[in-house]
Amino acid sequence: MTQRIPVAILGATGTVGQKLIRLLDQHPWFEIAALTASDASAGRRYGDVVRWRETTPLPDRAAGLEILSSRTPLGHPLAFSALDTQAAADVEPLWAAAGSLVVTNASPFRLEPDVPLVIPEVNADHLGLLPTQRARRGWTGGIVANPNCTTTGLALVLAPLHRRFGVDRLFVSTMQAISGAGWPGVASLDIVGNVVPYIANEEEKVERETRKLLGAFADGAIAEAPAIVSAHTNRVPVIDGHTETVSVGFKTPATPEQVAETLAAWRPDPVIAALPSTPAQPVLVDPRPDRPQPRLDLEAGRGMSVTVGRIRPCPLLQIRLVLLSHNTVRGAAGATIQNAELLVAAGVVSR
Amino acid sequence: MTQRIPVAILGATGTVGQKLIRLLDQHPWFEIAALTASDASAGRRYGDVVRWRETTPLPDRAAGLEILSSRTPLGHPLAFSALDTQAAADVEPLWAAAGSLVVTNASPFRLEPDVPLVIPEVNADHLGLLPTQRARRGWTGGIVANPNCTTTGLALVLAPLHRRFGVDRLFVSTMQAISGAGWPGVASLDIVGNVVPYIANEEEKVERETRKLLGAFADGAIAEAPAIVSAHTNRVPVIDGHTETVSVGFKTPATPEQVAETLAAWRPDPVIAALPSTPAQPVLVDPRPDRPQPRLDLEAGRGMSVTVGRIRPCPLLQIRLVLLSHNTVRGAAGATIQNAELLVAAGVVSR
Amino acid sequence: MTQRIPVAILGATGTVGQKLIRLLDQHPWFEIAALTASDASAGRRYGDVVRWRETTPLPDRAAGLEILSSRTPLGHPLAFSALDTQAAADVEPLWAAAGSLVVTNASPFRLEPDVPLVIPEVNADHLGLLPTQRARRGWTGGIVANPNCTTTGLALVLAPLHRRFGVDRLFVSTMQAISGAGWPGVASLDIVGNVVPYIANEEEKVERETRKLLGAFADGAIAEAPAIVSAHTNRVPVIDGHTETVSVGFKTPATPEQVAETLAAWRPDPVIAALPSTPAQPVLVDPRPDRPQPRLDLEAGRGMSVTVGRIRPCPLLQIRLVLLSHNTVRGAAGATIQNAELLVAAGVVSR
Amino acid sequence: MTQRIPVAILGATGTVGQKLIRLLDQHPWFEIAALTASDASAGRRYGDVVRWRETTPLPDRAAGLEILSSRTPLGHPLAFSALDTQAAADVEPLWAAAGSLVVTNASPFRLEPDVPLVIPEVNADHLGLLPTQRARRGWTGGIVANPNCTTTGLALVLAPLHRRFGVDRLFVSTMQAISGAGWPGVASLDIVGNVVPYIANEEEKVERETRKLLGAFADGAIAEAPAIVSAHTNRVPVIDGHTETVSVGFKTPATPEQVAETLAAWRPDPVIAALPSTPAQPVLVDPRPDRPQPRLDLEAGRGMSVTVGRIRPCPLLQIRLVLLSHNTVRGAAGATIQNAELLVAAGVVSR
Repeated sequence: MTQRIPVAILGATGTVGQKLIRLLDQHPWFEIAALTASDASAGRRYGDVVRWRETTPLPDRAAGLEILSSRTPLGHPLAFSALDTQAAADVEPLWAAAGSLVVTNASPFRLEPDVPLVIPEVNADHLGLLPTQRARRGWTGGIVANPNCTTTGLALVLAPLHRRFGVDRLFVSTMQAISGAGWPGVASLDIVGNVVPYIANEEEKVERETRKLLGAFADGAIAEAPAIVSAHTNRVPVIDGHTETVSVGFKTPATPEQVAETLAAWRPDPVIAALPSTPAQPVLVDPRPDRPQPRLDLEAGRGMSVTVGRIRPCPLLQIRLVLLSHNTVRGAAGATIQNAELLVAAGVVSR
Repeated sequence: MTQRIPVAILGATGTVGQKLIRLLDQHPWFEIAALTASDASAGRRYGDVVRWRETTPLPDRAAGLEILSSRTPLGHPLAFSALDTQAAADVEPLWAAAGSLVVTNASPFRLEPDVPLVIPEVNADHLGLLPTQRARRGWTGGIVANPNCTTTGLALVLAPLHRRFGVDRLFVSTMQAISGAGWPGVASLDIVGNVVPYIANEEEKVERETRKLLGAFADGAIAEAPAIVSAHTNRVPVIDGHTETVSVGFKTPATPEQVAETLAAWRPDPVIAALPSTPAQPVLVDPRPDRPQPRLDLEAGRGMSVTVGRIRPCPLLQIRLVLLSHNTVRGAAGATIQNAELLVAAGVVSR
Repeated sequence: MTQRIPVAILGATGTVGQKLIRLLDQHPWFEIAALTASDASAGRRYGDVVRWRETTPLPDRAAGLEILSSRTPLGHPLAFSALDTQAAADVEPLWAAAGSLVVTNASPFRLEPDVPLVIPEVNADHLGLLPTQRARRGWTGGIVANPNCTTTGLALVLAPLHRRFGVDRLFVSTMQAISGAGWPGVASLDIVGNVVPYIANEEEKVERETRKLLGAFADGAIAEAPAIVSAHTNRVPVIDGHTETVSVGFKTPATPEQVAETLAAWRPDPVIAALPSTPAQPVLVDPRPDRPQPRLDLEAGRGMSVTVGRIRPCPLLQIRLVLLSHNTVRGAAGATIQNAELLVAAGVVSR
Repeated sequence: MTQRIPVAILGATGTVGQKLIRLLDQHPWFEIAALTASDASAGRRYGDVVRWRETTPLPDRAAGLEILSSRTPLGHPLAFSALDTQAAADVEPLWAAAGSLVVTNASPFRLEPDVPLVIPEVNADHLGLLPTQRARRGWTGGIVANPNCTTTGLALVLAPLHRRFGVDRLFVSTMQAISGAGWPGVASLDIVGNVVPYIANEEEKVERETRKLLGAFADGAIAEAPAIVSAHTNRVPVIDGHTETVSVGFKTPATPEQVAETLAAWRPDPVIAALPSTPAQPVLVDPRPDRPQPRLDLEAGRGMSVTVGRIRPCPLLQIRLVLLSHNTVRGAAGATIQNAELLVAAGVVSR
């Protein structure tokens, strides 16, 4: 590829927008061509507006860009959306209508029947919804969403197990990092030395998005997986990294050894494996008794691998395990970028 | 009661021992008469040995006591054991044989068939095991245990529901405070900004102790409740207070409203209610969407009430909820004291 | 006192307002008669508006009060102001003009030459500014301020030393709790596992307020103490409790033993000692090498005593020490209440 | 360099030993040839003994090495010591006598008059003590120490200022990370949500080591800098990164602008700059008002640069500032490695 694809980042000043800028810096396929934010920031230099909170310096090129209004689509072939929920609902259709493929981390369209909700290793074939979406909505571009940060790690672990054993029933109780709420997000008075056993709308997202992700694409539509999912979602004082305790029952009985072997042996399809953001192993199995832990295992696969530990029998369903995924990389900005890479590899966006 | 009962505290220098001293200071029924520790500390003044970590000052009377060896039973009618596991296994039988009723927070004897594992509001009738225990072991005293800190909060919430609906299946995932591991306990490098999804032997304790606590006493023995329990136990950076997310299925279907009503209406039997440590309500129901939280709800009922929130349907079993209990009060020192009070009220220990 | 004085709380919904309500519940002298907030909340029931964050339940009486607008003074003899800076600047003069003695935790008027900035144990005589204030401003009421939370603990420790040795030069570096910033205040992403070495305007407040507090009242004015103060203020992930490391030089040389003795022996004047909120000892000296600590020493004197430790020589000035004070009790709501008590005891407000 | 120098790591299982293994993996000049630990671990495979806590995987080569006893010197040209204080006092002389240059992070010999205490950018010329050391002690090897973690960041900032303005008087108050105490180190119950205003012996180390580091080497000895240093050292709940608030007075008056310019312009001598571990800039100046912060600025210069912010006037001395350094990289393992590199570059150890 001699030339990189110019891309826009919608909602570039927030925490996910900043992470996109960091991860896209020196990306082999993409080049940031435009940064958008609310009208209040439009016209100002990005470096003068952003409260940069990444631990690496703000790239000079991004710092020097003039912020554009999210509301004015510019026709870039790819637009990465880090918009908040309401803005995404308003703005993403404008860009899709104007010809951009919008890869989005936002939630408004995730459960629309004609919108692919995609994790490349899990369900790249759901991109098959795009022609329906375009036809139905009259768009020349389109919207492709990645799931909620909590769902992503869970679905990555369930996917290879579902293929082999059939996921039937599922409990998940989460311990989620504060970065999942953005900035300022969770007030420190609410979480230092504390646990908050509630995240608005999160349990519903986990339950519904998981079924869609594990669903089958056929005849131009997704048939949701019939798994019954019960989620408990909690916030804990961790900066990055969602830990999830899971009990799962399968249609075909599975032993802990089979589950461990299936997860450790899982490799993505070659097209997916060749995407720049795809890790060598989507799921790593750690045999140590007290792992995974956010502080130690967060950066596995440059934040794109999920780590699983404590695979053991469940007295109630069949298997218990713990998983950890990086909520702002694999669960947000990295997921969006990987979806964009998939669109290029699939020829939906041309180089 | 014109005179208070002289009691011994075994293992008085650790965190549970310190909490016992704090809670027994000015107790209406009991007076600390002896403090024991390892032979290495015996003969020294308690105030010179203890690394006092309670937030109220060390009571002068306790400070001035000479530490005795845990290994030499002294025949006090009541001995409160805050010993660690190995020491408890060795020492508690000596005291029981010497005529003391040992109320213990330690785990070695909890699952012995002839040892009452008791929460007064839940299963005071299990004290009926004592005659069997004494006969079988040839003790003039005895051992009465309180459950593990995690089990205690759970069993208090399940007990009234079990009576009305019959607990059938149970999934619990915990977020446990570091004080549960004592001092020095969890290294700060392991838990600051982190989650550790493993506590040695904890899941087994929760699963087995819960069934014993909910079991029926008949014909001189306990028939464990047949509930299937699946536990996931985790450590989080919280000082005090275990939070537990629970899904539960009943033999008789129950609605969230029925569960909330049953919990909120639950009052202990009059004899139990009259114990000094029994709170007005063993279980408080908080209707706010983001409660309970350790930082805000820990001290309910002076640490002896469990707070329940988020009572809602479970897609897989029937009911989901969150509970919080004070792990070093209701889950340890307070539980031991309340059991001692029960022994007095029941006439097992005479005033 | 057969009847309690009806008081208003201005800015009752914030964290300091909530703490005032908690501390005034069952106060022997005062009764909450009115709660005010912004116009947006006026007309609604307090219990329906407040996001109550105290660890004891919201008192029923306060919950049932209708919120009034802060902008409409009601003529209560005492008004406790927990307003934020801008609102205080606008609103407090209205109440003072309408005849209320406004005891305020807010900063706008603290350094006005005719406004008493008072800690009762330290400089009750500064109330002598009130006649000047009333005359100059044409108010029938008045404004009496308590200092910034960081200054308060510092001034309490310096006051008895200043009287005996004369504080000359002072270096203070703080580790301040997040509750000092209110709610939502500090974003959790900014402080979990982190230190922020900056608090806007805080160092200036500490330096100037300290000099005014230690100043002498004579001829109707305050002559600021000539001490040179250098402050470094920092935020750390602690919920409540400001820790301050201090080096101090005196006009008259002082040994660590003299400093410890002076602090430990200090007792307030009888009139001040008789105020309900005055602790038995304003300053406690802890000889343990690793004290004071927020988690262990916060509640000394029901949050109204400052704890000092590590009194030792300073190679550069004369004495080094560490102090801890409860920033939302002694440093905010408790300070305001104690000032109101002083006004009653001094006859400025009549019972 | 065609061949790497084989080195031994003494005390390889602790946290500093682990960090050395991580940082030496793929080092261009050094190759780990031996790992030592206590006799209890000797003879076992490193990977079977170590509780590996770095966030990157344990390198295979180190994992496979057999642990040797620290007490048996092996004659490697370079030995990196991560021993604890007592073991270092016992063992390091054995290795030095056996011909190894011991580069050590341990404290026992730091203040010996004939032991170079070195930060390469600051005082590489202090290596001139080695001939004296060897002659006096009859060693063919020697000991070269790096300073305490807290001193290191401070001395790096002071060094260029001392050369230009002459450091005269100094206050420093620290907020130190828990990793400085190793593992298990600080108990979580002591530091979660808390501050501990005491670290044993730390203030003395900072005061004395700073004077030695800034001292002049002449006539075979170090003349300590006459600066008066007053240190307050504190522990805060941060994983890595020591933050220090500093007030400093100079012999030659300096403005904040001059200080900022001096620090930002400072570059090490070419020989030092060429060492693999030397960062491009030893000190970075950040103009943002709320920086540096551990969470955001820790990794500057791969953990080898110190970040300085808030350079402003001091009412008491002349200049106030805040500095942050990575206590386990620049303040421990990285410092030891950089000193070893210096010994190679200086020809003391031959390639």
